[in-house]
Amino acid sequence: MSMGIRVAVAGASGYAGGELLRLVAGHPEFDLVAATAHSQAGHRVDVVHPQLTGLDLVLGTTDPTALADADLVFLALPHGESAALAAQLPAEVRIVDLGADHRLADPYAWAQYYGGTHAGQWTYGLPELPGQRELIAESTRVANTGCYAAAITLALAPLIADGAASPADVVVVAASGTSGAGRAAKPHLLASEVLGDLSPYRVGTHQHVPEIKQASGATGLSFTPVLAPMPRGILATVTAVPARGVDPQQVLAQAYADAPFVHVLPEGRWPHTAATLGSNSCHLQATVDIDSGRLIVLSALDNLGKGAAGQAVQNANLMLGLPETTGLSIWGVAP
Amino acid sequence: MSMGIRVAVAGASGYAGGELLRLVAGHPEFDLVAATAHSQAGHRVDVVHPQLTGLDLVLGTTDPTALADADLVFLALPHGESAALAAQLPAEVRIVDLGADHRLADPYAWAQYYGGTHAGQWTYGLPELPGQRELIAESTRVANTGCYAAAITLALAPLIADGAASPADVVVVAASGTSGAGRAAKPHLLASEVLGDLSPYRVGTHQHVPEIKQASGATGLSFTPVLAPMPRGILATVTAVPARGVDPQQVLAQAYADAPFVHVLPEGRWPHTAATLGSNSCHLQATVDIDSGRLIVLSALDNLGKGAAGQAVQNANLMLGLPETTGLSIWGVAP
Amino acid sequence: MSMGIRVAVAGASGYAGGELLRLVAGHPEFDLVAATAHSQAGHRVDVVHPQLTGLDLVLGTTDPTALADADLVFLALPHGESAALAAQLPAEVRIVDLGADHRLADPYAWAQYYGGTHAGQWTYGLPELPGQRELIAESTRVANTGCYAAAITLALAPLIADGAASPADVVVVAASGTSGAGRAAKPHLLASEVLGDLSPYRVGTHQHVPEIKQASGATGLSFTPVLAPMPRGILATVTAVPARGVDPQQVLAQAYADAPFVHVLPEGRWPHTAATLGSNSCHLQATVDIDSGRLIVLSALDNLGKGAAGQAVQNANLMLGLPETTGLSIWGVAP
Amino acid sequence: MSMGIRVAVAGASGYAGGELLRLVAGHPEFDLVAATAHSQAGHRVDVVHPQLTGLDLVLGTTDPTALADADLVFLALPHGESAALAAQLPAEVRIVDLGADHRLADPYAWAQYYGGTHAGQWTYGLPELPGQRELIAESTRVANTGCYAAAITLALAPLIADGAASPADVVVVAASGTSGAGRAAKPHLLASEVLGDLSPYRVGTHQHVPEIKQASGATGLSFTPVLAPMPRGILATVTAVPARGVDPQQVLAQAYADAPFVHVLPEGRWPHTAATLGSNSCHLQATVDIDSGRLIVLSALDNLGKGAAGQAVQNANLMLGLPETTGLSIWGVAP
Repeated sequence: MSMGIRVAVAGASGYAGGELLRLVAGHPEFDLVAATAHSQAGHRVDVVHPQLTGLDLVLGTTDPTALADADLVFLALPHGESAALAAQLPAEVRIVDLGADHRLADPYAWAQYYGGTHAGQWTYGLPELPGQRELIAESTRVANTGCYAAAITLALAPLIADGAASPADVVVVAASGTSGAGRAAKPHLLASEVLGDLSPYRVGTHQHVPEIKQASGATGLSFTPVLAPMPRGILATVTAVPARGVDPQQVLAQAYADAPFVHVLPEGRWPHTAATLGSNSCHLQATVDIDSGRLIVLSALDNLGKGAAGQAVQNANLMLGLPETTGLSIWGVAP
Repeated sequence: MSMGIRVAVAGASGYAGGELLRLVAGHPEFDLVAATAHSQAGHRVDVVHPQLTGLDLVLGTTDPTALADADLVFLALPHGESAALAAQLPAEVRIVDLGADHRLADPYAWAQYYGGTHAGQWTYGLPELPGQRELIAESTRVANTGCYAAAITLALAPLIADGAASPADVVVVAASGTSGAGRAAKPHLLASEVLGDLSPYRVGTHQHVPEIKQASGATGLSFTPVLAPMPRGILATVTAVPARGVDPQQVLAQAYADAPFVHVLPEGRWPHTAATLGSNSCHLQATVDIDSGRLIVLSALDNLGKGAAGQAVQNANLMLGLPETTGLSIWGVAP
Repeated sequence: MSMGIRVAVAGASGYAGGELLRLVAGHPEFDLVAATAHSQAGHRVDVVHPQLTGLDLVLGTTDPTALADADLVFLALPHGESAALAAQLPAEVRIVDLGADHRLADPYAWAQYYGGTHAGQWTYGLPELPGQRELIAESTRVANTGCYAAAITLALAPLIADGAASPADVVVVAASGTSGAGRAAKPHLLASEVLGDLSPYRVGTHQHVPEIKQASGATGLSFTPVLAPMPRGILATVTAVPARGVDPQQVLAQAYADAPFVHVLPEGRWPHTAATLGSNSCHLQATVDIDSGRLIVLSALDNLGKGAAGQAVQNANLMLGLPETTGLSIWGVAP
Repeated sequence: MSMGIRVAVAGASGYAGGELLRLVAGHPEFDLVAATAHSQAGHRVDVVHPQLTGLDLVLGTTDPTALADADLVFLALPHGESAALAAQLPAEVRIVDLGADHRLADPYAWAQYYGGTHAGQWTYGLPELPGQRELIAESTRVANTGCYAAAITLALAPLIADGAASPADVVVVAASGTSGAGRAAKPHLLASEVLGDLSPYRVGTHQHVPEIKQASGATGLSFTPVLAPMPRGILATVTAVPARGVDPQQVLAQAYADAPFVHVLPEGRWPHTAATLGSNSCHLQATVDIDSGRLIVLSALDNLGKGAAGQAVQNANLMLGLPETTGLSIWGVAP
């Protein structure tokens, strides 16, 4: 048994939780010391996550004492439940929160889109934003990005920051695999409903809008999310008005020259979701529409990878002084 | 055996051709007198289209003599092959062309997006455009809409015509099932590649752009098509800048009040593709984005139904003086 | 408005119920006079079944008074709920029960596999069994087949009856699309779980075993059902020991020579589920394994078509003296 | 750059080849020194396998000189092409052949099922067979198992060897994801055909039959393979007549007590394919059918993992004296 960094996962029964367990259990520097859940507490991990058959672990109950002993805790709880739990953990325990509770700077935006009282902002866990890698490394509390926000911000932020794209009229249509909708048994998520179907939801009112605007720098955003018949993956089509005559591909390539997980594809190749499955990578490509002159950026990632658990491990690596790629895969599992 | 209208299908071995055979064979007023193909000529229909097992018919060769005897001919040929064949058919034979050859008014747009010489424009086969039902009824040559153009035009044309949406900055992202890409065996259309994948293609350069602009009235169009892991269905997300303060849902509802196949959904319900499978219906819903103020219209249809073969039969019904719903289903096959 | 046969559907909110509504509403001799449900009562049909948008109907409550006025009632209720309701309907109202309540002759088998008291046997609703078409035509109470039983019995019964296959050691593996598992929101039926997955269930203990044995004549049956990542369709692989040297394909072809919905395919073509989607057809093919000498029969149908609602309408047609194909499609919707 | 074991992959453009590249590139002891292909030679790896974006490698031409310099070569070539290439490689270069060329002992079986002259038998690469781990460790030439053979043999061999199952009347139905059918663009493998479909093929005549019999000990085998609408995964339902009254689960559990990749599931849990995706694991469960008394064993694995590339790396590890789990995952990627 290694004497590694002691890591716990709270909310381990959901899909992000399961992917966290897979990554933590396979991480060369981490020891998985606890995994907790709510209604699934008391079950073996492989009953809840059959893909983890061979991992000898029983889910505990999510309470602070089960977690306080860890060096780092991942919180994969429903939105609104992280703050209370985090407040009961010792200050020296590092926390990466995969929920939305601590992402927003603006309490009014929280109130409008989520309701209730805002829990306060933590360091935003998107290492590829300028300067953010260093901020994360110094933080003991990091708010992991939302899955849509990761895909869209990586596509858009450098273009707005560079002045290449206007922040004022950004139009995004993004489709997600079903694991992004969680594991609760809801009728519209049944396979019978989803197979063969593309289904938009929360059109023009999705709760990720303020996070996307805050992270990307967009000031006006039309966002249409769509549920797609696949288990994982986000494909975001991000369009914006070009602010000056630059090659968007070049701006992106320069912004991510040193980012191991963000790949601006060579010309002629477009991102597609299957190529990112199981990886922590985001694939990007940009063009200018020949008819409208709009910038179009396509962004693909695995919503449970770079959109959730992979991103969280990357943040944890940075917080713990490890190389950010430790225990993560650049490459996807395909076909 | 009925003494019905004699109908032939040229290009019957592809996916649109197969759906045409199903609809024609089940049409109460049509007699299917010939079905022709290229490399599949000589095969029984049920070898090429196993779903038509029980239909006793052998595919003939696509030549004018096999078709000239029909009252109405559907052409489901590759783009660029309809004009030559149509020129050899008697003037009194009614023709519905499912290819792109005769859709465009502008020969320069044809040359730019398709290449070669434009074959000339026929009556545009979208009955729900104002006055178009009458034009189709008087025509012996009708150019069926493209599948994307049908979905997008039905969503957009009434809003632009009404002055509710600006034609200048329309942004569309539309995803299609794989049958829209045809039946030729191409590596990127293999199930292994498509399953679990969303894949954009021809971003900003798709050849349907001029047809969509011509039919919808848009003057500036950013169009991103995406291949989705399902056999049928198009979901188009159409956004535009509102030109004045109107309720887009109301404009659409009024435009389609008498259209049996276009359904503007009640508030709270969004179109999704699976609900239109096998039908000739298009489902629409509209809203105004709370952040950007953009109009967002969602449009769903079956690319082989209202996007191809169903639309073609609807046009044929009108050309032949039949009720436009004859032999078509308003209802989809789900789940 | 036609003065057709008055038809009601009880249990109209599930998947079989939705398919029944589609078929009844499109049936040329039926008037859909009532559709009832339990928790969904009070909702418009198109809210519950978006594919039926355009059908102007509100779901009522499932009680005898709502149904007694019909000429024929389809019961698509959970297993165990049909008997009580049927007992309260007038004797002259014809009933087709899609549930299992009245299929079995043997009350002990009912008790062993379903539990509780057996409600008594009705005429078994598989018209293609010898003499069964006539029995159904004379009945006012018909027990529709189960979906697996339909697929397996059509493959097996003529071979056993003919003496071509031994009834003693039948091995069946059959996979079904998810709609066969119903519409209740259960975690293992979520798209995230089902996509990319083949999952066996109730191995060696499935409750359809006694029905399959009773209908097919098998005396020993090993049955393994598998959930497949598709919304509809059953593919049954049925193997048996040949009892004498006959050509199984020929036995089947002869048995179904006059059956409009059962197609024994020409040599070289194998049944597959997609070819039957939306139809009331069953496709069959048989061979003898070159290594083991076993008979192998493959059977494909749509579990909501010939496996449920289509079969029910076929039975209803017979009970009402209509041609058995009325309002049903031989052809599937593909791709 | 590490001074690792020099590894080459021939036939790197196919699906097994792509998975080999992923595993080799991520293997802690391997240096990927060459990857070769036929028509794709000259292309960057990430053009051919977008999931490997970030792997800086160009595909070379498959010839002996490009491979002779490696310590170990994986051959992922079409069946029948391995023998000629292997003959040109130095004797000290270790080879794992993923093709069928060297699996069979019986040249007559090769001639009957594959045609042509048999290339001769190599050590069979299924480490979990009794004594096989040691044989593989001593070999420089290993014939990797076929994907179906792996799934079925792991389920069956211990039961036959133990005398728990009769070898004489084994009935297997096994469904595979589409990657098992390769990457050549064939019409029946198009997504439009595969989605929503279960399709049997080569029923009773599949070329894996002699390999399965040889490896498992079965003397009579009825084998029905089915193509399923998923990219990866095999689920095999294996039934046999019990030879004496033993608990099949216990026999299997004992046989695989020390096998890190073969998991006999606890009672009540059934193997399903999605739980093995991306892993080198095989999940097993067994029962006795309550009606027929047949043994039923269910076996699930990833056809590109334990069924091909993962298995090959496991064999290579053994041949090179490494722990057999090096660079392989026990856990799958789900959902």
